[in-house]
Amino acid sequence: MAEKKLVEAITSMNEDFAKWYTDVVTKAELIAYSNVKGCMVIKPAGYAIWENIQRELDRRFKETGVENVYMPMFIPEGLLQKEKDHVEGFAPEVAWVTHGGLAPLQERMCVRPTSETLFCDFYKDDIQSYRDLPKVYNQWCSVVRWEKETRPFLRSREFLWQEGHTAHATEEEAQARTEQMLDVYADFCREVLAIPVVKGRKTEKEKFAGAVATYTIEALMHDGKALQSGTSHNFGTGFAEAFGIQYTDKDNHLQYVHQTSWGLSTRIIGAIIMVHGDDSGLKLPPAIAPVQVAVIPIRQQAEGVLEKASSIADELRKAGIRVKLDDTDKSPGFKFSEQEMRGIPLRIEIGPKDIENGKCVICRRDTGEKIEVSLDEVNAKIPELLDSIQKDMLSRAEEHLKTHTYEAHDREEFVKLFNEKAGFVKAMWCGETACEEKIKEDMAVTSRCMPYKQEHLSDTCVYCGKKAQKMVYWGRAY
Amino acid sequence: MAEKKLVEAITSMNEDFAKWYTDVVTKAELIAYSNVKGCMVIKPAGYAIWENIQRELDRRFKETGVENVYMPMFIPEGLLQKEKDHVEGFAPEVAWVTHGGLAPLQERMCVRPTSETLFCDFYKDDIQSYRDLPKVYNQWCSVVRWEKETRPFLRSREFLWQEGHTAHATEEEAQARTEQMLDVYADFCREVLAIPVVKGRKTEKEKFAGAVATYTIEALMHDGKALQSGTSHNFGTGFAEAFGIQYTDKDNHLQYVHQTSWGLSTRIIGAIIMVHGDDSGLKLPPAIAPVQVAVIPIRQQAEGVLEKASSIADELRKAGIRVKLDDTDKSPGFKFSEQEMRGIPLRIEIGPKDIENGKCVICRRDTGEKIEVSLDEVNAKIPELLDSIQKDMLSRAEEHLKTHTYEAHDREEFVKLFNEKAGFVKAMWCGETACEEKIKEDMAVTSRCMPYKQEHLSDTCVYCGKKAQKMVYWGRAY
Repeated sequence: MAEKKLVEAITSMNEDFAKWYTDVVTKAELIAYSNVKGCMVIKPAGYAIWENIQRELDRRFKETGVENVYMPMFIPEGLLQKEKDHVEGFAPEVAWVTHGGLAPLQERMCVRPTSETLFCDFYKDDIQSYRDLPKVYNQWCSVVRWEKETRPFLRSREFLWQEGHTAHATEEEAQARTEQMLDVYADFCREVLAIPVVKGRKTEKEKFAGAVATYTIEALMHDGKALQSGTSHNFGTGFAEAFGIQYTDKDNHLQYVHQTSWGLSTRIIGAIIMVHGDDSGLKLPPAIAPVQVAVIPIRQQAEGVLEKASSIADELRKAGIRVKLDDTDKSPGFKFSEQEMRGIPLRIEIGPKDIENGKCVICRRDTGEKIEVSLDEVNAKIPELLDSIQKDMLSRAEEHLKTHTYEAHDREEFVKLFNEKAGFVKAMWCGETACEEKIKEDMAVTSRCMPYKQEHLSDTCVYCGKKAQKMVYWGRAY
Repeated sequence: MAEKKLVEAITSMNEDFAKWYTDVVTKAELIAYSNVKGCMVIKPAGYAIWENIQRELDRRFKETGVENVYMPMFIPEGLLQKEKDHVEGFAPEVAWVTHGGLAPLQERMCVRPTSETLFCDFYKDDIQSYRDLPKVYNQWCSVVRWEKETRPFLRSREFLWQEGHTAHATEEEAQARTEQMLDVYADFCREVLAIPVVKGRKTEKEKFAGAVATYTIEALMHDGKALQSGTSHNFGTGFAEAFGIQYTDKDNHLQYVHQTSWGLSTRIIGAIIMVHGDDSGLKLPPAIAPVQVAVIPIRQQAEGVLEKASSIADELRKAGIRVKLDDTDKSPGFKFSEQEMRGIPLRIEIGPKDIENGKCVICRRDTGEKIEVSLDEVNAKIPELLDSIQKDMLSRAEEHLKTHTYEAHDREEFVKLFNEKAGFVKAMWCGETACEEKIKEDMAVTSRCMPYKQEHLSDTCVYCGKKAQKMVYWGRAY
């Protein structure tokens, strides 16, 4: 029976989390696999989530003075090579354009994997005086990285993102902007996506190619693995020196600008899925859900049912709620499964008996709870429930993060925790890259960040026993 | 003196229209030339116009049931070659990716010049039953065409656009959607951009590669040249047959889908500039202007001036007007020139004397008219003036289109008009491609469209003398 297929086809998350994930992204119709290897088609249900993310983030950006621009998608090879660390980081994973039309290019170009070099090339002409600073530009675009292993949203050869690139007169201002944008990301994740994150700084080994310092927000997925969800980089004057971006200060001296960049991508949709989802499918926080309420008529052929369902939907729309009336010829049970699979936060069930009794049933996607509500209270109840769901989803995610964050005080405990548990492990570290590399080699565990909120858990490095320098969040990551 | 430079640097449009155009796009800071050959940097003032275009068009699209998606940016060569006419049209002007990372690709891929082939490849799996139809998808993205001669916005190797791609059960439905989207474009140009357009069908020679019929909106620039401003194509079942996109109809028979596509690009920003601009720079219709009102304090150091200017700006913002307060340390004269150059529809001048008299001066960018307004009337007057400007700009553009559209009844008149006048020439045509090609060869004139509104101007083709089939708008075009 076609109607049962939708539900039967999902792998349980405890059985095989990776399979569960790909089942959800396809069954919830977020993406389709494409015949362009390593690239995906983002379908309407997936793209609508990205549109909401864009709207919400873009508004927050603009409140801090960000202006949007658009740079070319190609980087001539010579330009990519100007900053030594940067080219080493990216050259092995770019796509090269070698022919334009029928003729070979004089200089090959890569499709941008990130646009630092293009912004620098632009800023070197556009910035002359202290009056031209700061520049706080951002672009929404797609970028390409030639990954070998790909997974929808999490790692894809092409993905959508925003990349901010700023130039400042002083070191302090650049550092303040770097941290400000990390805060924007963290607040956005918490308030809109109901995802709590750990804010911190990346180690030297894990920082961005060409950066002085990289800051990150790290989220914990349902399976206990970490997902780097947004990063903000302070470049100091490294790029400015490589590209010659100088301004004349108030005392008429030439100075290099201080730069930052920061980005968040469609990868975050993977986080939404893996933080909130369950065995019935996706669970979308109301603030980001393209459809917040599904109105599903029961026995819709019966007199007055469709009309009533439709008027409920219209009333809610007028109140600014995003509503979908499902009046297709599928059975109510099938429609319920579909609404659950797609993660729509609330559904309203309304049939002839309900109408007779002046009531309807509202069902919460996050808890499965069913509430009988009189018809004249629906308009007041729905916004209230959406608020509750948003708050409760955050609380549950916070609880999960809390109960899956462990502390290790010595090597034995550290190894045992990663053998037996899945989650973050907080532990002291000596600060040496060699030690960090050894941990990765031995245990497939990476440093996620040195959190802002430092604690003193032990005097020595949990792995090598040298003097402890920093507390680090360690984890296995996507 | 630095302050005069801004104005002095603009070439007069009557002296050299092409130079005037490039002066405006750079001095109004819409774009910067990039070191990536043939590509441009769209700066904040330019990108903000595109954002407003996107918002306005996207809203109109969604009202007609359009859903947004995102397809990969690469097209494998084999996929591009599936539809014969299409590949012939585009293969000579695409950029080829031949290497991914350090390794050569097994099959080279082009960067999308347009995405028909990608949508078809997706639809062939996604569409099975009549229940899956229609598909009315759109994407906002950038595309690449390896042009030899480039000009900002008008012809660029990379440009931003939207491309809609739809699939329908019947021929009638596909034709209705093709025309509906052309109407959306035409209404948008008229209502938002204050640009009147001629709607019509392209000849066989000028239609899109792979289309059964292409419809177009053609606008007339200030210099009398035409600009194709948006197109909508009916593909019939051609692509469906090439790609095998079939659905099972209600009677359980396999049928090919009928497809359309339609696009509008950043090229339209070129139209805004060339329809409305003047020797002081850009003139933006209020509905699309990122800043609608510039508030410019006079003697801003004087007590109370900045405070008053700022409170006027705040009040207008509260009323939903897009306002910029220019409190930089430039002189008022310089700020006026800058506001004019950037095409901001209104400026408010406010100084100590004005405040004393409880008044301010409002200046219209479109006419230069200065109006003295009492301070308590500003909030009521500004929306009124913005409305008038929007209407008047459209009226002037309509008048220009009318006075620069000519009729030719025979070959002599046709040739004479194109030798002496600049504009559209309406004339009868035999319907033969050979004749159309001869006209292009002899006079560098192309058929712009066969307008919906047909007239009978003569019995014979204006150029070859054979029996007339259609009335055509002819012109020289960008």
